[in-house]
Amino acid sequence: MKERMIIGIAGGSGSGKTTLARNIVEHFGDRISILRHDDYYKSQKDIPAEERPNLNYDHPDAFDTDLLIKHLDELRAGRSVKSPVYDYSVHDRSDKTRLVESTDVIILEGILIFADAELLKRLNMKIYVDTDADVRILRRIIRDVKKRGRTLDSVVTQYLSTVKPMHEAFVEPSKKHADIIIPEGGKNPVAYGMIIGKIDSYLNEI
Amino acid sequence: MKERMIIGIAGGSGSGKTTLARNIVEHFGDRISILRHDDYYKSQKDIPAEERPNLNYDHPDAFDTDLLIKHLDELRAGRSVKSPVYDYSVHDRSDKTRLVESTDVIILEGILIFADAELLKRLNMKIYVDTDADVRILRRIIRDVKKRGRTLDSVVTQYLSTVKPMHEAFVEPSKKHADIIIPEGGKNPVAYGMIIGKIDSYLNEI
Repeated sequence: MKERMIIGIAGGSGSGKTTLARNIVEHFGDRISILRHDDYYKSQKDIPAEERPNLNYDHPDAFDTDLLIKHLDELRAGRSVKSPVYDYSVHDRSDKTRLVESTDVIILEGILIFADAELLKRLNMKIYVDTDADVRILRRIIRDVKKRGRTLDSVVTQYLSTVKPMHEAFVEPSKKHADIIIPEGGKNPVAYGMIIGKIDSYLNEI
Repeated sequence: MKERMIIGIAGGSGSGKTTLARNIVEHFGDRISILRHDDYYKSQKDIPAEERPNLNYDHPDAFDTDLLIKHLDELRAGRSVKSPVYDYSVHDRSDKTRLVESTDVIILEGILIFADAELLKRLNMKIYVDTDADVRILRRIIRDVKKRGRTLDSVVTQYLSTVKPMHEAFVEPSKKHADIIIPEGGKNPVAYGMIIGKIDSYLNEI
């Protein structure tokens, strides 16, 4: 039995990493599964609802990375897991879970996955999606205002108070660990083709 | 007849792009040929020998890019070319030439190839090798002092007066055009494997 291939996809908020990960998963269907670090945001049940929007969601401590590592190791050992599902509307973990099967190729996606030594050493391929900060904030504004119903002011405040400083402190430096860096992840056909090709040949060898 | 695959490999001085290009060429043998922008430095016959070391060799105007484009187009059309050969010991084009065959895959290597619009549009895959400036200057010192017999002072002077400012003005901004960015090009097995895989599948399809 060949070892499972674990692919890490990191990059800043709005970089296009989620689009890249989704495109890969859609291409291979149920031969690939995905774990998202965002789904492992810590439960905020003990914090009053009105305070939750002001927490720092871009620091490594905001995530239950221990649980993510445990789940990743379960998948690597051939057992399926139930990933938590985060509810952005109430800034808390929801009661739902998502069944993740132990497939031959597993994608791990998140802004901070290259900032954790335990995650890093479990990754066979490390892809960092690199997009200019101005393009990233524009995408974030569109996503949070149009799709998540937030005010423009709240998006700007959160960006300047936590997203940007945490990006510069943790995300950007973690780029050092990447095997390849992809400009404009979701719209880069050459890089996408190379990744698909690599996974394809891995799956064909099994 | 399928179109030839032209792969551009750019990156700063000392980045590891030459090592990467050489490893790819060695892997595929005579199925791949290579053009190096460095071989197309303009002839300096009209300039006194003692002035040549002080010229700016890192500005786009230092290269006979028109000739390079002409040769690249010849190769794309299926005809072999005779690439000039540069003699670093006298800072001038030598009398030698190097026969370059028109293979299915052609690598174009150079610090400034992504800074030229005409070259850019001929490239099917654009790889930028990205290495920290401190590591690059250390490699350059070792190469120029140990292998090319230059003094440490002359390497430092050239680096600060032309190599560094030209890198910041032309090379670094041209990274924007890359399809993939590779940290530490010569010593990155994951990225190397992806590139080899991509070329392999292209050659198998022909």
